[in-house]
Amino acid sequence: MGNADDGTYSSSNKYGSAPAAASHRVALPPPMPFVTSLRNTLKETLFPDDPLRRFKNQPPRRKVVLGLQYLFPILEWGPRYTLDSFKSDLISGITIASLAIPQGISYAKLANLPPILGLYSSFVPPLVYAMMGSSRDLAVGTVAVGSLLMGTMLGTVVNASEDPKLYLHLAFTATFVAGLFEAALGIFRLGFIIDFLSQATIVGFMSGAATVVSLQQLKGIVGLDHFTHATDIVSVMRSVFTQTHKWRWESGVLGCVFLFFLILARHLSKKKPKLFWISAMAPLTSVIMATILVYFTHAEKHGVQVIGELKRGINPSSVKDLNFDSKYLTAAIKTGIVTCIIALAEGIAVGRSFAMLKNYHIDGNKEMIAFGIMNIAGSCSSCYLTSGAFSRSAVNFNAGCKTMVSNIVMALAVMFTLLFLTPLFYYTPIVVLSSIIISAMLGIIDYDAAIHLWHVDKFDFLVCITAYIGVVFASIEIGLVLAIGLSLMRVLLFVARPKTLVLGNIPDSKVYRDIDQYQNASHVPGILILEIDSPIYFANSNYLRERMSRWIDDEEDRLKSLGETSLQYIVLDMSAVGNIDTSGISMLNEVKKMVDYRGLKLVMVNPGAEVMKKLNKSKFLETIGQEWIFLTVGEAVVACNYMLHSCTHKMNSDGSHKYNNV
Amino acid sequence: MGNADDGTYSSSNKYGSAPAAASHRVALPPPMPFVTSLRNTLKETLFPDDPLRRFKNQPPRRKVVLGLQYLFPILEWGPRYTLDSFKSDLISGITIASLAIPQGISYAKLANLPPILGLYSSFVPPLVYAMMGSSRDLAVGTVAVGSLLMGTMLGTVVNASEDPKLYLHLAFTATFVAGLFEAALGIFRLGFIIDFLSQATIVGFMSGAATVVSLQQLKGIVGLDHFTHATDIVSVMRSVFTQTHKWRWESGVLGCVFLFFLILARHLSKKKPKLFWISAMAPLTSVIMATILVYFTHAEKHGVQVIGELKRGINPSSVKDLNFDSKYLTAAIKTGIVTCIIALAEGIAVGRSFAMLKNYHIDGNKEMIAFGIMNIAGSCSSCYLTSGAFSRSAVNFNAGCKTMVSNIVMALAVMFTLLFLTPLFYYTPIVVLSSIIISAMLGIIDYDAAIHLWHVDKFDFLVCITAYIGVVFASIEIGLVLAIGLSLMRVLLFVARPKTLVLGNIPDSKVYRDIDQYQNASHVPGILILEIDSPIYFANSNYLRERMSRWIDDEEDRLKSLGETSLQYIVLDMSAVGNIDTSGISMLNEVKKMVDYRGLKLVMVNPGAEVMKKLNKSKFLETIGQEWIFLTVGEAVVACNYMLHSCTHKMNSDGSHKYNNV
Repeated sequence: MGNADDGTYSSSNKYGSAPAAASHRVALPPPMPFVTSLRNTLKETLFPDDPLRRFKNQPPRRKVVLGLQYLFPILEWGPRYTLDSFKSDLISGITIASLAIPQGISYAKLANLPPILGLYSSFVPPLVYAMMGSSRDLAVGTVAVGSLLMGTMLGTVVNASEDPKLYLHLAFTATFVAGLFEAALGIFRLGFIIDFLSQATIVGFMSGAATVVSLQQLKGIVGLDHFTHATDIVSVMRSVFTQTHKWRWESGVLGCVFLFFLILARHLSKKKPKLFWISAMAPLTSVIMATILVYFTHAEKHGVQVIGELKRGINPSSVKDLNFDSKYLTAAIKTGIVTCIIALAEGIAVGRSFAMLKNYHIDGNKEMIAFGIMNIAGSCSSCYLTSGAFSRSAVNFNAGCKTMVSNIVMALAVMFTLLFLTPLFYYTPIVVLSSIIISAMLGIIDYDAAIHLWHVDKFDFLVCITAYIGVVFASIEIGLVLAIGLSLMRVLLFVARPKTLVLGNIPDSKVYRDIDQYQNASHVPGILILEIDSPIYFANSNYLRERMSRWIDDEEDRLKSLGETSLQYIVLDMSAVGNIDTSGISMLNEVKKMVDYRGLKLVMVNPGAEVMKKLNKSKFLETIGQEWIFLTVGEAVVACNYMLHSCTHKMNSDGSHKYNNV
Repeated sequence: MGNADDGTYSSSNKYGSAPAAASHRVALPPPMPFVTSLRNTLKETLFPDDPLRRFKNQPPRRKVVLGLQYLFPILEWGPRYTLDSFKSDLISGITIASLAIPQGISYAKLANLPPILGLYSSFVPPLVYAMMGSSRDLAVGTVAVGSLLMGTMLGTVVNASEDPKLYLHLAFTATFVAGLFEAALGIFRLGFIIDFLSQATIVGFMSGAATVVSLQQLKGIVGLDHFTHATDIVSVMRSVFTQTHKWRWESGVLGCVFLFFLILARHLSKKKPKLFWISAMAPLTSVIMATILVYFTHAEKHGVQVIGELKRGINPSSVKDLNFDSKYLTAAIKTGIVTCIIALAEGIAVGRSFAMLKNYHIDGNKEMIAFGIMNIAGSCSSCYLTSGAFSRSAVNFNAGCKTMVSNIVMALAVMFTLLFLTPLFYYTPIVVLSSIIISAMLGIIDYDAAIHLWHVDKFDFLVCITAYIGVVFASIEIGLVLAIGLSLMRVLLFVARPKTLVLGNIPDSKVYRDIDQYQNASHVPGILILEIDSPIYFANSNYLRERMSRWIDDEEDRLKSLGETSLQYIVLDMSAVGNIDTSGISMLNEVKKMVDYRGLKLVMVNPGAEVMKKLNKSKFLETIGQEWIFLTVGEAVVACNYMLHSCTHKMNSDGSHKYNNV
């Protein structure tokens, strides 16, 4: 190790007893008043995207305009809107309307609500979102999982068939609560809460929910009247197969035929994305064909259930229907909060992924406010929970939508339907709605993503599968709680058991890297270089102390077995330690004592600004000695080697002067 | 920036279109079978201290001996025990017995249990711990906070004065549950759960509990019969001051005199640690003096309550008293679990801090097993919850104890007391017990620690104060839940909002460091170097994407305002990224897209083993191009500069050849 002579030592006497005069010292960050540092922390925590950036250095009047544009993005893009864009939006708007109408009716059934609510919910909320939302591709309306969740959660307090009016009112109330909660999360900049739903959780949960939703449709397919309220696979299967004598083959045949047709259409569109309109038009085509079929064969008299009469006219007000009776309030609040989180997770994830493709930015907190206002307005106009739906947004995107005008077109189409076309749905068989739901759900079950998770990260896969199994075999809520619990446990485990590495020298360089990763890296005789790959907190400081002591034991064993020089220095590379708390500092003090007791010397490398500040305030810098803190591992090793060999030299006074080359 | 010519480029043509031929490449870790990596992860998670280390390469017979020694450390140190050690242990044992007897009686009163239980609990558990524990300094017995907690928690289901027998049996059951839970935590290696109680939490919680315990003693001091069951300061003060007419001055005077004496003794011992025996003997002296005083003045007839008759004889069996009636089981389990966590947190923290001073090792999981067996044995022999008590352990340590024999001596002294001396306590006034508790509790309230927290880490201080206020103004459980919640929230916030830094070049070096920390570090023209100081997970990937995009915006603004070269390269230093999950990889893909869209180039530096593995499996390495991944920031900057200037050169064909020096 004769590489101590790289010139950094020429001034080592200047520091008296200091072992090293490395050319660069680790700096303490410039002092910052408490208020400033608190403000910075709060800003990073709550305003990481700096939403006020564009207001900087603007005249007051311009600020008002910018503020309005911030709240209502339509004011920003509206004036620049062109006829070309309108042509694209018109086509995509009509396309998603043709999907929204049958899906709206189907999802309302899923929530045990009157079918007309699905149409209402595809009218007002898209208009509100078009004013306030920042996505250009989201197709707003009711969503399958949210609908099912609302159905099962409200179903536990009120039976929808026994007291449909109360049930309806509670649905409005839950939607109102969901909207309020969404808006509050956005206003208080707490959007990061939904970041704790990891991608793996969402994949598992959505796939599970899609499975459950599809299973529920067996009721419609085989034409059963009585069906379990539970959503788990065991109850559903039991319910289906204990009633085989009540199966209606007419219904079953119709369902399977349309399901086959829909799946075929989906398959075609998937193969050739240009044929997206086939799968987009298929549901409405199915509805029209099935309705005509029933109308002429009078199948409704032979066991094929039909929708029946739909009230004509646009959304009536439902402000007076909001029910804040304390008896049901808890259930409404619980339902509202759970469905809100699910709706947000789906809506924002979908919005973000399409924004990514077109390279524009979605502000999560602002989106939440838009979703919140949309649901509050919805709950007052006979709509239930709405969000950005995945399948319809994909169709919207593929159909070439340019702006939110496609949603306005869709809303107008729905309005037209509500005003004039509702009688046409009288003979629409429910079984075709079930087929439409199943075919939409099959698109949500994402095995490819699960396989990808398995390949890349086994724990993520475990989280995903847990969420799936929880939803399918227990209930939607249990699946969600399991998946979130596991995700949080994972974060805590990550924090509690951080990586520590032994570094070695990469040949022909002054670079030190993980010995396990770089097979050619070599140990430095007499020096153990450890790297801690995480902030040091109360949650991991005990572990880190034990782990470090084990590294030292291991290294001493290794050196003994090789008969090499004994260990002299422990170099702690702190580069990756982003922060430290008081428990962490106590731990370092203990490690220092332990290292001293073993007759070794603790050396520290490159602590960051925050860590230096706290080490200084807690006087640890004095304990370890500022001269034992180096900017790079290379400099620390050079200094240790210098000390090591000049000591050896002094002890073995007959030794060569080989190392004492300063 | 003419420093591109450091020779690493001599072979750049070898790589065809690759921009850089850095001398060292970032290595992929050697592949590892899934089972091996799972085993390693489980080992790191559950056996970080490698308890099986000493069994390695030993003959089977030796393994049995080592195993027994592992379970019963007394087998290890027992044979080496010397007379010298015994002399020290005898003195310290008698000293802590003199403290344990009055404190035992006092703490039992705190738990609303018969005073004799305090003596029982200082006999059996210390003997069990002496066999199984690995601490040499812990003084085992009942603890104030655990006693109070048990009293208030069981008090909510059974009134101790109305049904003392049931209450007693539930206390045994809760102790049994606590022991079972402690042992289970240790056996399943889940000891790290108590690591989530941060030092700040413990300081705040213990100080709060000590305050509450002292406040409770006002009942004894002013001699009240009826007293609130709540522990919060408001209820206690109301209870004390609404009954001023019932205050007994005799009791008050006695209490204040002894309190003054005890505090004086504590103060003396604190000033001169050699006089530790003054404060250690003070409680027993007070008890003796007060008892004699009452005996001769017959103060018990003038409003001074006395202990009364204590049953003579050692611990009766209480196996049959364990009550698993489903009616009370929930309360017993809840009390057991909460008190167990508090007892463990205190016992293990105390054990560890003294082990640190004498430089031996405490194995948390093994300690939990010892505590568990001790409490299970205790619950079957008429003892209630025991742990390692802070104040008595400090006295034990100061008295010069060498091994657990001091606990055996203490247990024998308590046994002697139980067999022969109990009648002497008949006239001991309860008020003197209150004084003893208050004086012990004053030592636990640790303002110095709180002030230290304020100086070093404001958030830790907040956690500490929250726990304190929660305990004092609401209840012990609420304080604990608040503090743990805040601690966990802090961990999650740390994870959700990691540090990102802009790096600059330290003058006259190839080292790149945080620009905020190193005032002399300078930006590299055209290159933005970012460092991420945390693993990248689902919980922070959205934040990191937004933050990176903001750094780029800021840098472009800065360059524009300075009129400098526009930004060309984003160098991402991944050294501190210990791990990444699938959400993190998606985020990197998005950042890559965003950077590409802005016409910039993404360069990566030094990803660790785990990160490289996952980037490879998810094909991100192919997306970014392996040639754009460098071992050090220095190499990356050299390569970028080379590209930057050779491009500039090509564009300005009339430019000088200054930069094109390869």
